[in-house]
Amino acid sequence: MNLSVPMDVPARSRERYRRRYQALTAGTGRLMLFAGDQKVEHLNQDFFGTGISAQDADPEHLFRIASHGRIGVFAAQMGLISRYGMDYPDVPYLVKLNSKTNLVETQQADPYSAQWMEVSQVQEIAEESGLNILGVGYTVYLGSEEESSMLAQAAQIVTCAHREGLLTVLWMYPRGRAVRDERDPHLIAGACGVAAALGSDFVKVNYPRGPQAASDFREAVLAAGRTGVVCAGGSSDSPHAFLSRLHDQIHISGAAGNATGRNIHQKSLEEAVRMCNAIYSITVENRSLEEAMEVLEG
Amino acid sequence: MNLSVPMDVPARSRERYRRRYQALTAGTGRLMLFAGDQKVEHLNQDFFGTGISAQDADPEHLFRIASHGRIGVFAAQMGLISRYGMDYPDVPYLVKLNSKTNLVETQQADPYSAQWMEVSQVQEIAEESGLNILGVGYTVYLGSEEESSMLAQAAQIVTCAHREGLLTVLWMYPRGRAVRDERDPHLIAGACGVAAALGSDFVKVNYPRGPQAASDFREAVLAAGRTGVVCAGGSSDSPHAFLSRLHDQIHISGAAGNATGRNIHQKSLEEAVRMCNAIYSITVENRSLEEAMEVLEG
Amino acid sequence: MNLSVPMDVPARSRERYRRRYQALTAGTGRLMLFAGDQKVEHLNQDFFGTGISAQDADPEHLFRIASHGRIGVFAAQMGLISRYGMDYPDVPYLVKLNSKTNLVETQQADPYSAQWMEVSQVQEIAEESGLNILGVGYTVYLGSEEESSMLAQAAQIVTCAHREGLLTVLWMYPRGRAVRDERDPHLIAGACGVAAALGSDFVKVNYPRGPQAASDFREAVLAAGRTGVVCAGGSSDSPHAFLSRLHDQIHISGAAGNATGRNIHQKSLEEAVRMCNAIYSITVENRSLEEAMEVLEG
Amino acid sequence: MNLSVPMDVPARSRERYRRRYQALTAGTGRLMLFAGDQKVEHLNQDFFGTGISAQDADPEHLFRIASHGRIGVFAAQMGLISRYGMDYPDVPYLVKLNSKTNLVETQQADPYSAQWMEVSQVQEIAEESGLNILGVGYTVYLGSEEESSMLAQAAQIVTCAHREGLLTVLWMYPRGRAVRDERDPHLIAGACGVAAALGSDFVKVNYPRGPQAASDFREAVLAAGRTGVVCAGGSSDSPHAFLSRLHDQIHISGAAGNATGRNIHQKSLEEAVRMCNAIYSITVENRSLEEAMEVLEG
Amino acid sequence: MNLSVPMDVPARSRERYRRRYQALTAGTGRLMLFAGDQKVEHLNQDFFGTGISAQDADPEHLFRIASHGRIGVFAAQMGLISRYGMDYPDVPYLVKLNSKTNLVETQQADPYSAQWMEVSQVQEIAEESGLNILGVGYTVYLGSEEESSMLAQAAQIVTCAHREGLLTVLWMYPRGRAVRDERDPHLIAGACGVAAALGSDFVKVNYPRGPQAASDFREAVLAAGRTGVVCAGGSSDSPHAFLSRLHDQIHISGAAGNATGRNIHQKSLEEAVRMCNAIYSITVENRSLEEAMEVLEG
Repeated sequence: MNLSVPMDVPARSRERYRRRYQALTAGTGRLMLFAGDQKVEHLNQDFFGTGISAQDADPEHLFRIASHGRIGVFAAQMGLISRYGMDYPDVPYLVKLNSKTNLVETQQADPYSAQWMEVSQVQEIAEESGLNILGVGYTVYLGSEEESSMLAQAAQIVTCAHREGLLTVLWMYPRGRAVRDERDPHLIAGACGVAAALGSDFVKVNYPRGPQAASDFREAVLAAGRTGVVCAGGSSDSPHAFLSRLHDQIHISGAAGNATGRNIHQKSLEEAVRMCNAIYSITVENRSLEEAMEVLEG
Repeated sequence: MNLSVPMDVPARSRERYRRRYQALTAGTGRLMLFAGDQKVEHLNQDFFGTGISAQDADPEHLFRIASHGRIGVFAAQMGLISRYGMDYPDVPYLVKLNSKTNLVETQQADPYSAQWMEVSQVQEIAEESGLNILGVGYTVYLGSEEESSMLAQAAQIVTCAHREGLLTVLWMYPRGRAVRDERDPHLIAGACGVAAALGSDFVKVNYPRGPQAASDFREAVLAAGRTGVVCAGGSSDSPHAFLSRLHDQIHISGAAGNATGRNIHQKSLEEAVRMCNAIYSITVENRSLEEAMEVLEG
Repeated sequence: MNLSVPMDVPARSRERYRRRYQALTAGTGRLMLFAGDQKVEHLNQDFFGTGISAQDADPEHLFRIASHGRIGVFAAQMGLISRYGMDYPDVPYLVKLNSKTNLVETQQADPYSAQWMEVSQVQEIAEESGLNILGVGYTVYLGSEEESSMLAQAAQIVTCAHREGLLTVLWMYPRGRAVRDERDPHLIAGACGVAAALGSDFVKVNYPRGPQAASDFREAVLAAGRTGVVCAGGSSDSPHAFLSRLHDQIHISGAAGNATGRNIHQKSLEEAVRMCNAIYSITVENRSLEEAMEVLEG
Repeated sequence: MNLSVPMDVPARSRERYRRRYQALTAGTGRLMLFAGDQKVEHLNQDFFGTGISAQDADPEHLFRIASHGRIGVFAAQMGLISRYGMDYPDVPYLVKLNSKTNLVETQQADPYSAQWMEVSQVQEIAEESGLNILGVGYTVYLGSEEESSMLAQAAQIVTCAHREGLLTVLWMYPRGRAVRDERDPHLIAGACGVAAALGSDFVKVNYPRGPQAASDFREAVLAAGRTGVVCAGGSSDSPHAFLSRLHDQIHISGAAGNATGRNIHQKSLEEAVRMCNAIYSITVENRSLEEAMEVLEG
Repeated sequence: MNLSVPMDVPARSRERYRRRYQALTAGTGRLMLFAGDQKVEHLNQDFFGTGISAQDADPEHLFRIASHGRIGVFAAQMGLISRYGMDYPDVPYLVKLNSKTNLVETQQADPYSAQWMEVSQVQEIAEESGLNILGVGYTVYLGSEEESSMLAQAAQIVTCAHREGLLTVLWMYPRGRAVRDERDPHLIAGACGVAAALGSDFVKVNYPRGPQAASDFREAVLAAGRTGVVCAGGSSDSPHAFLSRLHDQIHISGAAGNATGRNIHQKSLEEAVRMCNAIYSITVENRSLEEAMEVLEG
C-alpha cells in the first residue's frame, strides 16, 4: 500500500512512523488488534466463569496468545505490559492510555475515562526498555457530559504520538444519558468522522446490528476518510458467525480491520491461537471465510 | 485597505501577521471562510442523507472544494488537515481549536467545548510541515454555565496566536439554559462586543431573523469595532436566497464576510466550487448579486 | 502624598511602582478610573438604545473619551486595548483581567469570572508594545460558591503585579445566592477588608444606598486600611446628583476616588469629556461641587 | 527544650528551621499566636460594632498590638503584611495561606478555602523584603466534601515550608454537612492526629465544651504526638475566664499554646497589649493565673 | 525467589529496585506490611477507647512497634514519618501518598482520596534524610464516581515510583453508591486485575467473607498475575482466628502477604511486637499456625 504519513509527524519521526505502520499492518493497511484491556473495563467478568477457559484467569494467558498467535498488535495497559514484556519481547504492543471499570452505570453518571499516562512517558519507557511499542490507544465516550475532556485528551494524544512517530487507535463509543441507540449506523459514522477530525490512524467502533449491518457500515468507513476503521469484536460468538461477520466488514463495508478480545482470550491457548490466526488470515492475508475456517480448525 | 496590526503582536511577528492578513482577505479586509468543522459539531448529519451529494460522505470532498474553489480560508480541525494537507498544499488553512458533538442537548447540560490543542502546537506543526496555516478558530458559548472557561481559553488563544503572528476567528454563540433567543439582534451585538474585548481579528456570529435583519445587524457590526464580523451561513438554503442575504450582510449591515459550510459542501464538487466562487465574488470581489448568480450558474 | 511601597514589590520594581502610582493618581493618592469593561459585563445594553448617544455604539468612543478627557486610568480588557492602543498611545491603561456576561443570573448559578491572562503576559505585551499600562484589575464575587477560586486568583494577581511594579484594583462585589443585600454597608466594609488582606492598592466597591450612605461608608474606608477605596459609578444618573454624591464620597466618607463608566460613555464625546473633567476636578483636583458643575457645563 | 527537626527539613535549611522555631516559641516549645486573619474569615463583624473598640476598625490596630504586645507570632494574610510590614519590621509574622468568607453557610455548601499563594512565593517575598516571616498557616475543613483538596494542599504546604526551613501551623476544623458536633473531643483528637500525619509543627483546634473540657482535651494532645496543639481563642469572653481556661489547657491538657484574635484586638490598644502580655505570661513564661491577672491589670 | 524487575524500571534504577524488593520481602516475595495510616482514615477511633491499649493514644507507639517487631515495611504518611524517623532510623518505610477521613459517608458522596505528594518529593526527602524508604502506597476506590481521578493518579504513581526504583502497594477497594457488595470475591478479583493493569508490585484488598473465603480468594490471586496480593487485616479479631485466616490466605489462596494495623497497634507494645512476629513468622518465614501461636505467646 501507498502510505501517506500525516503532516503532524515531524520530519525526524517520519521514518519511525512508517516503520511502525508497516509493522502494525504487515504493509497492508489492515490491522488485526488483539484487545487485552478488559481487566479494567470489565473487571474479572471476561476472565473467570462459566464458558471461559480456566487458563484465562491468569493475565499471562493474554501474553501467551499474543506471542504465539498471528496478530498486528496487542493492546493493553502499560502496567500489564511492564510486568510481562521481558518474557514476551517480540510481541508488538499498543499501550491503552485510559481505562475505567463498568461499576458506575450510565444511568448513575455519564462515563468518563481519564488518561493514565502521557505519551512522552510511554515513549521514554519504550526507549529505556526496548519494548516493541508501536502505538497508543484511547477511548472517547461521545455524548457523555464529560465528552469535552476526552476529546481534548484524544487530540493531545494523537498530536503527541505523531510527534514521536507512534500510531494511534481511538476507541470511539457513543455513550451517555443523551445517547439513545449506541448502535445506530448514522451515529457510528459520526463517531468515525470525529476520529478523522482528531487525526487518528485508526478508529475502533462497534458494528451496527441487523441484516443490513455490512452495507449500513459503509457510511462509517466513508466518514472516517483516511482513518482506518476497525470493528470491535463484541461479546462472545460462535467462531463461524464471528469470522463471517468479519469477512463482511472487510469486503462489504470496507473496514480496515478488527479489534478482538473475548472471542480470542476466553478460549484455551491452543484454540485462542488458532482463532487469532483465522482472524489474521481474513484481515491481513485477505483469505476467504472457508480458508479462515480451515485455519481455525487447524 | 489600511491594516492596523494589533498591539499584542510583537515586533518579531508583525510582518507574518500582515502577510497572513493579506492572504486571508486578499488585501480587502473581507473574509470568505469555508467551514469544514462540522464532522464533530454535527456528526454525520451534514454529510450523508437525503438532499446531500454522495460525494460529501468522504471528508476529502471538503479538501477538493477548498482546493478548486476560491476561498479566503478553509477551517477544520488539525487532525483532518494533517491527513489531507500533503495532497492539498496550496489551501489556506484555519485550525479550529475546539469542537463538540451535538449529542448532549442544552436542556440536559449547558454547552462546553474544550480547547484541543495549544496555539504553540499548531505553530510547531505549521513550521515542521510547511502547511499554509493562516490562523486559528475557537467557539465560545456565551450564557452557558461553562462560559468562564471558554472566555479564558479564547483570551489565551488570541494572545498566543497574535504572539505568533497568526490570525483569529471566534465563533461567538449565545447558548445555554439562560439564553432565551439566540438570534436576538441586541444579544448578537453583545456577542460581537465580547469578541472585540477579546481582541479577535474576526468574529463569526449567527445572523438575526426577520425582515429587518440586515439593518438590525448594523448594531452588531458597530459593536465589534475593529473586529471583522463574519456571518454564519446557517442551514441549507436556495442559492439565490443565500447570496441575496450575503449581499445584504455586506452592503447593508457592513459585515466583513461570511463563513459557509453546508451551503457549499452538500453539493457535488462542481456545484460546490461554483457556489464558493459566487460567494467569493460578493464577499471579496465586491460583485453584485446578479454577477454572483452568473458565477454560480457557470 | 507620602507613598509607602508595599513589601511584596521587590527592590528592582519599586521605582516602576512609584512612578506608576504617581501617574495613576497625579501624586495625590486619589484615583479617577474610567471603566470601559462593560462590553462583556453588560453586553450591548450600555452602548446602544434609548437615552444613549449613538456614538457609544462604536467601542472607539471609549478611547476617544479616554484620550480627550482627564482621567487617572482607563480600564478595559487587553484585547480591546490591543486593537486601539496604537492610535491612543498616551492613554494610561489598566488591564481588566477577568470578565463575564450577565446572561446567567444569580438564581441560576452563583457568579464566577475567570482570569483571562496572566500578569506576566500583560507585562510582556506592555514591554513589547510600549503601551502605557499602569496596572491590572480583577473582580471577586464574595459570597459566591466559586469565591475560593476568585480569591486565589486575586491573591496571585496582586502578588505577580507587585512583583512587576504594576498597580492593582480589585472589584469586590458580594454576590451569590448567599448574599441577601449587596449594598449593606457592613458587608461592603467587609469586602474592603478582604481587599486589604489581599494587599490590593485600590478596591472598587458599590456605594451603600440611603440618606446615611456617606457616613455609613466611612466604615468601609476604615476597614480598607491602606488600600484606597474607589466607588463604582453605578447606573446612569443626573450629572448634578452624580457629582454631589462623588463629592460626599471623598469629603465625608474619605474615599480615594471613583470608577465611572456609563455616566461618562453614554454621552456624546463632547459631553463625556466634560463629565470626565468634572469628575476629575473633584476627585484629583479637590474642587468643590460648584466648580465641578462649571467644568461640566464648559 | 530539646528540638527535634523533622526529617523533611533538608540539611541546608535545618539551621533556619531551628532558629525560627526558637524565635517562635522563645525556646520553650510553647506558642502564643496572635490571629489577625479574620478580616476575610469574619468580614467586618469582628472589627466594628457594639462592644468593639473603635480602634479596631482600622487594620493597623492589629499591627500596633503585634508590635507593642508580647507575642510568639502574628498571623495574617501576605497582602496585609505587605502593606504594613515596613512600619512594623520587628513583628514576627506567620503568613496565613488560605482564607474564605463566612457568607456561604455550611447548609448551602460544604466549606472550601483555597490556597492563595505558594510557599515559594512567601519565601521569595521574605528574602526580598527582609520581613521576619517565621512560618505559614493553612486551614483544613475535615469532613467537608472538599476535604481531599485541602488535605492535599496542606501536605504540600508542610513539605514545601519545611524544605525552606519555615514552620507550619494547621487550623484543623471539622466542618461540613457530615459533621454533627464540631466540638466532640474525640473528633478534635482525630483532627490533631490528621495534623500529625500531615507533619505540621503546630495544629490549631477548637477546645471542647463542658466541665470536662480540660481533661477531655488530653486525648487530642496525645493524638497530635510531636505536633504541638494550640487552642483557638474563640469568641469574646471575660479576661478572667479566658485566662483561666488557657491555664487549664496548658497545665491540665498539655497544650502547646494558644491562638487568640478577638479576645485581644477588640480591645483598645493599651488593653489589648496587656491582654497579649497576660496570655504570653501563662503560655510562654509559665506564670500562674494570678500572676497573669496582675499583668492584665497592669 | 526469582525476581523479575518490571520493564518500566529504567536500567539506572534496577539495582535499587531489586535491593528494595529483597529488603521488603526478605527475599521471599512475601510482604508483611504494618499499616499505620489510620490516623487519617479512621481519625482517633482506632487509637483511643474501650479495648485499646492506652499506649496506642500516642502515635509514637506505631514507631516503637515497627522498630521492635519483625515487619516487612511500616506504612504511614510522610508527615508522620518525618516527625519520628530520626529516632527510628532502621525501620523500613512505605509512604502512603493519599488518605481521607471517614467523616463523609458513601451515601452522602462517593469517596475520593487525593494524592498528597509527588513521588519525586518522597524520593528527594529520602535522599536528603537517609530515611529507609522502600516504596509508596495509594488507595483507589473502584466504583466511586471519582474513580477516574484515582486510577490516573495510581498509574502515575506506579510509573514514577518504578522510574526511581521504588516499590508500590495499591490499596484497591470497591466503594461507592454503585458498589453493592464490597466483599464479593468476583469483584475483589476484578480489583486485583485492575492493580495488575496498573503495574503495581503489590495490591492490598479486603478478604471475602464466608466459609469458602480461602478458596474463593484464589480467583483474586490468579487475576493479579505477577502483582502480589496482600490481605487487609480488617477489624480487630482474636489472635488465633486472625493467624489462622492469615495461614489460609497464604497457603490456600496463594496470597503474597498481609497488611495489618489495628490487630497489632491496639495492643500494648509487648503484645503488639509478639503479634508482629507471629504474623511475620507465617507470612515470611513460612511457619505453621501452631509455631506462630507459640511466637505470639512468647
